[in-house]
Amino acid sequence: MHETSAVRAVLADWGTSKLRMWAWSGGTEISAPVTDPRGMKFLAPADYPQVLAEGLEKLSVPPGVPVLICGMAGAAGGWQEAGYLEAPLGLAELGAGACRVDLPERDVRILPGVSTRSPTPDVMRGEETQILGLRGGAQTPLVCLPGTHSKWVALDEDRLTGFTTYMTGELFEVVSQHSILAKTLDEAWDASDFRTAVDEALADPVRVWQAFFGLRASVVLGAGQAASSRARLSGLLIGAECAAARAQHGPGKITLIAGGAMAQAYDTALRAAGFDVHLRDGEEVTRNGLIRAAQDIWRD
Amino acid sequence: MHETSAVRAVLADWGTSKLRMWAWSGGTEISAPVTDPRGMKFLAPADYPQVLAEGLEKLSVPPGVPVLICGMAGAAGGWQEAGYLEAPLGLAELGAGACRVDLPERDVRILPGVSTRSPTPDVMRGEETQILGLRGGAQTPLVCLPGTHSKWVALDEDRLTGFTTYMTGELFEVVSQHSILAKTLDEAWDASDFRTAVDEALADPVRVWQAFFGLRASVVLGAGQAASSRARLSGLLIGAECAAARAQHGPGKITLIAGGAMAQAYDTALRAAGFDVHLRDGEEVTRNGLIRAAQDIWRD
Repeated sequence: MHETSAVRAVLADWGTSKLRMWAWSGGTEISAPVTDPRGMKFLAPADYPQVLAEGLEKLSVPPGVPVLICGMAGAAGGWQEAGYLEAPLGLAELGAGACRVDLPERDVRILPGVSTRSPTPDVMRGEETQILGLRGGAQTPLVCLPGTHSKWVALDEDRLTGFTTYMTGELFEVVSQHSILAKTLDEAWDASDFRTAVDEALADPVRVWQAFFGLRASVVLGAGQAASSRARLSGLLIGAECAAARAQHGPGKITLIAGGAMAQAYDTALRAAGFDVHLRDGEEVTRNGLIRAAQDIWRD
Repeated sequence: MHETSAVRAVLADWGTSKLRMWAWSGGTEISAPVTDPRGMKFLAPADYPQVLAEGLEKLSVPPGVPVLICGMAGAAGGWQEAGYLEAPLGLAELGAGACRVDLPERDVRILPGVSTRSPTPDVMRGEETQILGLRGGAQTPLVCLPGTHSKWVALDEDRLTGFTTYMTGELFEVVSQHSILAKTLDEAWDASDFRTAVDEALADPVRVWQAFFGLRASVVLGAGQAASSRARLSGLLIGAECAAARAQHGPGKITLIAGGAMAQAYDTALRAAGFDVHLRDGEEVTRNGLIRAAQDIWRD
């Protein structure tokens, strides 16, 4: 499929739940992705070489071509711990900070994560590559990467100056699956119920703590059938996240890296909080970030 | 054990996880409690008469003596739904609002819960009897009943004017058992780590949302061994609850109905929030509340 002679490196986003690989031929020339469901959470360290070899086979990559990996494969419990660079840091330092995997036949490197110690100890792994992938594009001083553990990243030109994690997605999951609200939440999603809850949380974020049990009580009292409790719980949590981030950073231009329903929900909430939102696709910025890191490592 | 001729009613606190019964002989004359582990969550509606009969047997109560029950036995899914009286209401209305159980051989009644529709739909069941049990004692305009679902109840003399539920205890359970923090939380409890987290939450409750993931990141970075993450998570959540309640009610005199470690934690947090705390024992106020309701129902 590819002129294998032209392949300069294989780039891989090896996350918790899946692996995505591209053959890169320099510049912005890159293959379509090859994917594998064997993410970090399904693998022991010894499993990685075989999974990688199968991916290289699918991409028809010859021996000797190096591999650059970002994501949870570099976490403790992944393939090999790739450590953390401490913020603030220049984004160009990421490539140089990559960790060599102990594999005799091929040059395989894993990009480091980023850590901070203030105001709260915090870590990211994978998102730093997406941030690197924004470089050169329309830049905003703040980037929001929503998800299980949402990251809000502050930038100053090509420097990552700090970041904060919110467990919003995971709080939604554990509360909706394991608390008394599990009996109560509907499957429906009503965008206006979501927006109303976001507005409530933004107007008075401290009150959010009082609003959770209301999702249960509404049903007990037969008063809640009109509202989508699932959308409302999500709106309260995302609204509280946006309120806290706005208190820290003030509203302004922000890049939102997300797709699908997540992008839609955060776009709504960020705009409600007064942010000027620029949406970018997650896979695109990951690929761009891996290309930039590969250029930083293997440029001649 | 008792002069059975003197028993005027059997009083029962039939909660989610256990049953506690007393033989009441009028005035403040009451037996030691008889307990049974068969709480509401272990029983189908048809099981209740037999469990009650065994308790009456243990208390040596003759046929014909009436029974008054408070708690989750009156919830949907309990013995028989006892409904809710809507706040604001006079506490003396509780006894008259009791629901007769369909049992031919004995007068058995279950006290209603209390509901409110503003500012958020809310319900309580069992706590209203404890509030009734405070009547006549040193009264404060605000009562805190911490637990899985903490209740904050506003009083105006003998009227229950409103209340708010916080899912604090349940949030602690689901986050500490089912989120990524489950890997991280230690078994230790350090009172000063608890207090520090309470103070942080009170100083800036919006920031609490940023602090959860720090409990994980501290461990990943090897920075957190000195702090008890369990105490810290609890302090953040209880601190956020107290901050929200203080924003609603302002600091002032408050009655705390609690025992053991729960009483200690909330006493610390409430004092840190500026409340003037009067501690009362939960079992004592439940018993007093049942006596008062029985007097309202069966006084001659």
